[in-house]
Amino acid sequence: MRKSAVVLLSGGLDSATCLAIAGQRGYRCHALSFDYGQRSTAEIEAARHQAQEQDVAEHRLLKLPLGQFGGSALTDSNIEVPESPGDGIPVTYVPARNTIFLAHALAWAEVLSADAIFIGVNALDYSGYPDCRPEYVEAYQQLIDIATKAGVEGRKISLEAPLIHMSKAEIIRTGTELGVNYSHTLSCYQADGQGLACGQCDSCRLRREGFAAAGIADPTRYRAAVQAVRP
Amino acid sequence: MRKSAVVLLSGGLDSATCLAIAGQRGYRCHALSFDYGQRSTAEIEAARHQAQEQDVAEHRLLKLPLGQFGGSALTDSNIEVPESPGDGIPVTYVPARNTIFLAHALAWAEVLSADAIFIGVNALDYSGYPDCRPEYVEAYQQLIDIATKAGVEGRKISLEAPLIHMSKAEIIRTGTELGVNYSHTLSCYQADGQGLACGQCDSCRLRREGFAAAGIADPTRYRAAVQAVRP
Repeated sequence: MRKSAVVLLSGGLDSATCLAIAGQRGYRCHALSFDYGQRSTAEIEAARHQAQEQDVAEHRLLKLPLGQFGGSALTDSNIEVPESPGDGIPVTYVPARNTIFLAHALAWAEVLSADAIFIGVNALDYSGYPDCRPEYVEAYQQLIDIATKAGVEGRKISLEAPLIHMSKAEIIRTGTELGVNYSHTLSCYQADGQGLACGQCDSCRLRREGFAAAGIADPTRYRAAVQAVRP
Repeated sequence: MRKSAVVLLSGGLDSATCLAIAGQRGYRCHALSFDYGQRSTAEIEAARHQAQEQDVAEHRLLKLPLGQFGGSALTDSNIEVPESPGDGIPVTYVPARNTIFLAHALAWAEVLSADAIFIGVNALDYSGYPDCRPEYVEAYQQLIDIATKAGVEGRKISLEAPLIHMSKAEIIRTGTELGVNYSHTLSCYQADGQGLACGQCDSCRLRREGFAAAGIADPTRYRAAVQAVRP
């Protein structure tokens, strides 16, 4: 039987690439997205596009009450999204977000008897986020092995983070080779209702620099002409 | 400043006792309950009672789409709740439930800058549940240390499972000493709309045996007179 995976799909560039990698590795993919009160609901539309274009077995959208806790610029409109990153952990960090997302992925993986969970975390670009580091992925794998019926019965649910050590340019090159349509992805922290990116926030900047460094034309739809990035 | 904790509060006997223990240890308690499509919504009413009676700083109820995945008799009405446990992991096991609950508790704990998270898991009575074992609690603690802003900054969020090695009778004796009103708790897997327990399911049986072994009158409201349990 073909092996299967639950793939976290945010609609961003990284998770779209992660989904393509899972597909290329032969997994039947079950994509999982979340509506958690993030500012850009256009992100969810992008996830729908990706799920469709990449022909997943199933795509589910779960509504989570994450914004209730506040504490992040991404879910709390009282906190401003900065244009450039400061020191330490960014205000765009959503407390325990990946821990919550992976917990739901794990529940679905158990019910599906899936072999793997894919998450598009990346340690290089997001060094400020504690839950994007290799040691985080390792600790979660250990938890999965102990937490699940599968683990107790000796079946492994493998937590895969194929982008963890890749640069943004490498991610973009890899995805482009796998046919990912990046015009249908959204990375901006403050995209508007039409899904147009601001071109200025930290996430936009990393994305633009990534396309420039990869030598690939940036297909992102920006609200206004943005200053060219020199590789 | 007084130390604070997020306490998972299901409305069952164990979590009510766990909350009382956290309070006795001097924590300012923030109780967290979930509406996840469990069959007994009376459970949530019991949680409200406990939060009020035990005078918590705050009580939040989060709605989670756990039932969407199915795979458990507790959230899937197509799976029957058995009266006696079989071998292995029971059908009442909800995939990754504690992993999901703790992830949300962690998010709240981060936002509150709380010092601890309390969970009323118990290894003796629920040996069939992988996510009620001491090694599970340890693995989750390791994840918390790595996953959080607090952890990165050197502040500890301690995961406390004070009931983990206690028998049901010990739990009941402890809670009784701390003034827990067990008539306002619900353990039954198939309680009716009025919160009356069936007296027959696995969870009712454990509870009844616990009161009998503790030598304390069972205040549970059952649907019909149940056969006496001999200690």
